[in-house]
Amino acid sequence: MQHVSPIIIDLKFARESVVAALKTAFPNRPVIDKGDPANLGRDLSDATYAIVWKPDPGLFAKATNLKVIFSGGAGVDHILTTYELPEVPIVRFVDRSLTDRMSEWVVWQCLHHLRHGALYAKQQQQHVWNEVISQPEARDVTVGVMGLGVLGLDSVQKLKIMGFNVIGWSRSKKEIGGVETFDAGSLETFLKQTDLLVGLLPLTPETKGLYDRSLFEKLHRKGPLGGPIFLNAGRGGSQNEADLIACLQDGSLKAASLDVFAQEPLAADSPLWSMPNVTITPHAAASSEVGALFAHVEQQIVRLEAGLPLQYTVDRRLGY
Amino acid sequence: MQHVSPIIIDLKFARESVVAALKTAFPNRPVIDKGDPANLGRDLSDATYAIVWKPDPGLFAKATNLKVIFSGGAGVDHILTTYELPEVPIVRFVDRSLTDRMSEWVVWQCLHHLRHGALYAKQQQQHVWNEVISQPEARDVTVGVMGLGVLGLDSVQKLKIMGFNVIGWSRSKKEIGGVETFDAGSLETFLKQTDLLVGLLPLTPETKGLYDRSLFEKLHRKGPLGGPIFLNAGRGGSQNEADLIACLQDGSLKAASLDVFAQEPLAADSPLWSMPNVTITPHAAASSEVGALFAHVEQQIVRLEAGLPLQYTVDRRLGY
Ligand SMILES: NC(=O)c1ccc[n+]([C@@H]2O[C@H](COP(=O)([O-])OP(=O)(O)OC[C@H]3O[C@@H](n4cnc5c(N)ncnc54)[C@H](OP(=O)(O)O)[C@@H]3O)[C@@H](O)[C@H]2O)c1
Ligand SMILES: NC(=O)c1ccc[n+]([C@@H]2O[C@H](COP(=O)([O-])OP(=O)(O)OC[C@H]3O[C@@H](n4cnc5c(N)ncnc54)[C@H](OP(=O)(O)O)[C@@H]3O)[C@@H](O)[C@H]2O)c1
Repeated sequence: MQHVSPIIIDLKFARESVVAALKTAFPNRPVIDKGDPANLGRDLSDATYAIVWKPDPGLFAKATNLKVIFSGGAGVDHILTTYELPEVPIVRFVDRSLTDRMSEWVVWQCLHHLRHGALYAKQQQQHVWNEVISQPEARDVTVGVMGLGVLGLDSVQKLKIMGFNVIGWSRSKKEIGGVETFDAGSLETFLKQTDLLVGLLPLTPETKGLYDRSLFEKLHRKGPLGGPIFLNAGRGGSQNEADLIACLQDGSLKAASLDVFAQEPLAADSPLWSMPNVTITPHAAASSEVGALFAHVEQQIVRLEAGLPLQYTVDRRLGY
Repeated sequence: MQHVSPIIIDLKFARESVVAALKTAFPNRPVIDKGDPANLGRDLSDATYAIVWKPDPGLFAKATNLKVIFSGGAGVDHILTTYELPEVPIVRFVDRSLTDRMSEWVVWQCLHHLRHGALYAKQQQQHVWNEVISQPEARDVTVGVMGLGVLGLDSVQKLKIMGFNVIGWSRSKKEIGGVETFDAGSLETFLKQTDLLVGLLPLTPETKGLYDRSLFEKLHRKGPLGGPIFLNAGRGGSQNEADLIACLQDGSLKAASLDVFAQEPLAADSPLWSMPNVTITPHAAASSEVGALFAHVEQQIVRLEAGLPLQYTVDRRLGY
């Protein structure tokens, strides 16, 4: 029988989910689970593949014979910023479940702001029965989605079906039925129509710190929600958090829903936690289902070993 | 010129919305606005039409020559329970905007429960960063919609698109692609599959007090949300509120989202206000847009006067 080289697993996910999924994954391949203390000093030079989420800083210096790196999530910023990254293909995770979960989060939070969720929660605390008279419907509100990739496109479709007026922005212009789209050069035109801004961009050198005061101040200020609202489920590194906080405090932004932060976990003393107009979820918008991730990796390895091209590879120059 | 008989407006809505809409509505008909003190003692026997929402108890004794009664909302329980109701057609309000708003509320609240909204809000208050490990996706959760009328059907479609497994129940069995449906006789089979129960029934003698302990206890108990959840945006009279409160307290129900109550406004001392697992909105799920209501009434009057049949008439025997 042919020698099968091992696959490294270095996933900073909830430990029990990795252990559970490994029970049935990769029946025909040896696995080096970096979360298992038994593998602490193990030689890694025999491994051909690695599946990583926030890999150990020294990983790639030791795993010197990798042929492919698989990202544990849709984003690859956690890989591209590591040391001694070998010049091999990086495959990101694309998955129906991940996509559906992200759209759940986006639609949930857009509806929360549309339907005065924070105000009704406050009234409930005070036992106050008071219908908010100004209740726009979804079609009166323009949601601007930044990033029209796998996730952005699905959110756009579902927001449309919920009735929102949806527009979209991406590096290269997209054609989407019923949705006005803008390319990188038309950011200002896009922003000035947007009432609810949804960030679904990858973190790259170009998107780092992109959501800052100058961007927020270009958003539509006379919309039916009483001021622009910012949602981010892409990456926290794309937001200038000092600007974000100041804009939420001075009314440049009316509210925000944040799943991602410049530093995670968000520091316990961040003022964001206690802002009444901010909803925080702990980078939980669309977590990878580990079983699905392993199935996707297995599928790509089978493709590769059958001489087919890998799918979902990353363009290193662009950073996503 | 032909004599045009006046139309009575008796709408217990936010006063300013009625006044604003009347400015342009019914340009060719005299209007008797019952909200205007000037009309307090006015004779009503010359009126042919009335648009009512929770009409004055004495209205129909005075308006003795009505030919049609128009409901200010989708429900007509507030009319059918009034005294001396004349034997004339009752037309309810059916409107795209009303329907879309109801689906916004239903999808919003279903996602809120799916995505652990209450738990994340609590963690935020405590500045706690902690991803909930058990995060089912929508397709793992069965939403059971009671009432497959204009509103129920639209909610069903939108819940499906958001990924939920959806089943439905109505008096007469419906055929809906991709959705298992049940008729009045199969209530138990329907309930025992349901994780999230959505009430969109009219209040009638048959649905009065229908949501009681015996019904809640038949819901699916082993679902991925950790217990059955109840949403009601139909009518509060359909819920046995003592049972509802007790079931929320003893865990027979895990949580609830309530827009309607047996008595409205909900009493300030109702225990529902301060239950951490309950979301309350003040009968605001789908308010009638007054301008659209008047346009709908005008359209029906034009039909009638052209010899066409009225639409959306109520079956008094059934109560909706
Ligand atoms: N919070 C969470 O739980 C979570 C979960 C999964 C993913 N994410 C984040 O979501 C991001 C998006 O995922 P995806 O699968 O949709 O990625 P994707 O398919 O690679 O799409 C990325 C989109 O962003 C656009 N874009 C990238 N750089 C840009 C720039 N400089 N200017 C304008 N547009 C730019 C791309 O434009 P083109 O179409 O022109 O290439 C594309 O439309 C991931 O990178 C990850 O960071 C977060
Ligand atoms: N919270 C709010 O803001 C708000 C706003 C608008 C309306 N509502 C409420 O929502 C209700 C539904 O509106 P709609 O426009 O969807 O009404 P609809 O079109 O008349 O539909 C009513 C549905 O309920 C079913 N039904 C009625 N009695 C039943 C019974 N005894 N057993 C089983 N099924 C029964 C009907 O079954 P069949 O199909 O077999 O006839 C039908 O599917 C209104 O009556 C109103 O009370 C609330």
